[in-house]
Amino acid sequence: MIRFYNGRVLSFVNGTEITSDEVWTDGGSICYVGPKKAVMPQFERQIDLNGDLLLPGFKNAHTHSAMTFLRSMADDMPLDRWLNEQVFPREAKLSPDMLYVMTKLAIMEYLSSGITSSFDMYFHNDAYVKANVDAGFRTVICGALNNFDRDITALEREYLHFNDCNELISYRLGFHAEYTTSLERMEYVASLTHKYKAPMFAHSSETKGEVLGCIERHGVTPTVLFDKLGMYDYGGGGFHCVYMSDEDIDIFKRRGLCAVLNPASNLKLASGIAPVTRFLSEGIDLAIGTDGAASNNALDFFREMYLVTALAKYREADASVCDANRVLEMACVGGAKAMGLTDCDCIATGKKADMTVINLHRPNMHPLNNISKNIVYAGSKENVRLTMVNGKILYENG
Amino acid sequence: MIRFYNGRVLSFVNGTEITSDEVWTDGGSICYVGPKKAVMPQFERQIDLNGDLLLPGFKNAHTHSAMTFLRSMADDMPLDRWLNEQVFPREAKLSPDMLYVMTKLAIMEYLSSGITSSFDMYFHNDAYVKANVDAGFRTVICGALNNFDRDITALEREYLHFNDCNELISYRLGFHAEYTTSLERMEYVASLTHKYKAPMFAHSSETKGEVLGCIERHGVTPTVLFDKLGMYDYGGGGFHCVYMSDEDIDIFKRRGLCAVLNPASNLKLASGIAPVTRFLSEGIDLAIGTDGAASNNALDFFREMYLVTALAKYREADASVCDANRVLEMACVGGAKAMGLTDCDCIATGKKADMTVINLHRPNMHPLNNISKNIVYAGSKENVRLTMVNGKILYENG
Repeated sequence: MIRFYNGRVLSFVNGTEITSDEVWTDGGSICYVGPKKAVMPQFERQIDLNGDLLLPGFKNAHTHSAMTFLRSMADDMPLDRWLNEQVFPREAKLSPDMLYVMTKLAIMEYLSSGITSSFDMYFHNDAYVKANVDAGFRTVICGALNNFDRDITALEREYLHFNDCNELISYRLGFHAEYTTSLERMEYVASLTHKYKAPMFAHSSETKGEVLGCIERHGVTPTVLFDKLGMYDYGGGGFHCVYMSDEDIDIFKRRGLCAVLNPASNLKLASGIAPVTRFLSEGIDLAIGTDGAASNNALDFFREMYLVTALAKYREADASVCDANRVLEMACVGGAKAMGLTDCDCIATGKKADMTVINLHRPNMHPLNNISKNIVYAGSKENVRLTMVNGKILYENG
Repeated sequence: MIRFYNGRVLSFVNGTEITSDEVWTDGGSICYVGPKKAVMPQFERQIDLNGDLLLPGFKNAHTHSAMTFLRSMADDMPLDRWLNEQVFPREAKLSPDMLYVMTKLAIMEYLSSGITSSFDMYFHNDAYVKANVDAGFRTVICGALNNFDRDITALEREYLHFNDCNELISYRLGFHAEYTTSLERMEYVASLTHKYKAPMFAHSSETKGEVLGCIERHGVTPTVLFDKLGMYDYGGGGFHCVYMSDEDIDIFKRRGLCAVLNPASNLKLASGIAPVTRFLSEGIDLAIGTDGAASNNALDFFREMYLVTALAKYREADASVCDANRVLEMACVGGAKAMGLTDCDCIATGKKADMTVINLHRPNMHPLNNISKNIVYAGSKENVRLTMVNGKILYENG
């Protein structure tokens, strides 16, 4: 058992209220949240938070972890040249062994940023899973079916296998994107969502060109197409969601879909800014992702959280929109919901012990006028004191 | 003498070339840059860079340091309510003693971000200077004359006094902004620029409303007005420079003025995005500032550097604009030029020892495909290993 005491807890059990509770973990789970008890059990370790803040870890709800291998390889290029001249040829040469190493690198960076789980879409999934299990990191794989796959039935086999291989690993149905996947293959994905009554995720409406191309090919936007095919009958959502029509937003609302925001990647690739304020006012579920290190280039949740709200303010020309607390909810709770990690969404007895300690003693966290705003508007990776996944401390004091 | 060895040096002497030179400091200055020598002097300390990168410190070319006291006090509000209900009433109560403490806090944050000097505009300058001298930090004060000042001649007295009080302190002529300063007072500033043949800086063209208001009051934009008054006859520049007309840009070019960019503040206050690509193509001097912690809310140069280029890419809808090396030049060299710190702009014999060591061993700096891009696109405060000002190590390993 591990005891966290003498600090602050943002549990997300009661909105964004911050308490002075103790939090105890036992194995992979949280076993107690509340005041100090008169009789205390034996602890393996007692961590004096010294006023620091414990909160559920950040959920990186869209990423391509092993793309760390492409970091700073080819920036400052137009998107099409970047993809065709740099990304695709180099990806073709990425071996499972190299993917394992580059995934480990991404996990180290996640931990240094207080991220406790990832929603990852890439390939060589056996090597990917091994890297996560070896590191003790929690990940949800998203199916990445597209026209380059030789055997489309791998999607179903992976779905069954990776949902039953390790407590740290799960798998959601998905495919890459409309512009890389034939109608026939999308229909196959839809059939699986029905067979397993499962939610479905894909890249969607990331660029204006993608949406216009989809309308040209299929007569409708990606969201409308996916919905018509029945892919969203059991929920799910889209990665990016920058260019969304009223009809798209209506579908997200009606189906309870999640829009996963990737502000840094959208900005650096000059794709655009997602309509976050509109999503919020419509009550649409939101989560946040870093996207891969090839486009971001960091895997830094503080950057993403800041950008979600700062870009929303810029987009609406209104400094009052998208409150910091909403952003923290997306980062911790919204991500967990999108990823199906309903055991990792708050700090409460019985939940998984996926937690992060934010160092409130660094200069950028003072004065403590408002802790949530300090984290979202001034936080940085220097503030991550400890990251725990499934009850294990994987990162501490740099 | 202090010796840095076994690392990388981005000196800015030869563009953005990175060498494996040693760098030695003696007192406040750099006394040697080059290969290891056969006969070595006695060193007070020898720092094994272990492959890390030494570069000239970042210059925070626009800030209001003591505004740390307002951090996270009043975000998520419209700009006018934020200023009138929160900032102004609270500033009126800020004592010199409190300003001293809050300046110290800002300096700690600067150091944690690799910043070695600041260009600061605020008040209670005696207390401000004491905080900087006590901390060993280098600062350039910018005159802040406005309609609230009782005695306008303080500007000249401060100019003379603070340019001759301590090697860490200097002072440039300036005033707050057109919208807070009468024509008569601006004419007084202009007379001082002529008397001392000195450059002049002010907030300029930060918001569309400010520019429209200036046109209403004076018939011309702020830049044209300042130039007509003769304020720019000896150079200088503007803070923010978001809304710039062709004529404004022409004046900046003709007068050799510097546009100081403040992307995070402009974004969060929903002010806009400066035309960085246009500035670059016109060859206009650029520097970067954090603005105050009340609006940013961080004093984090990695955030600013990332935003300068990512927002330029977004603004032009072109991922290829504003290369990472240009951003590093603005941060290290451009800032020094704007602030008159011509002894702090590069790592060369005889220059001031204002330097920062970037830790290239953190996960976010791997692989080392391109060091400049890694720093600008993926860097964070976790990467600051050491910050030295005037030959003294003020920050090391957090």
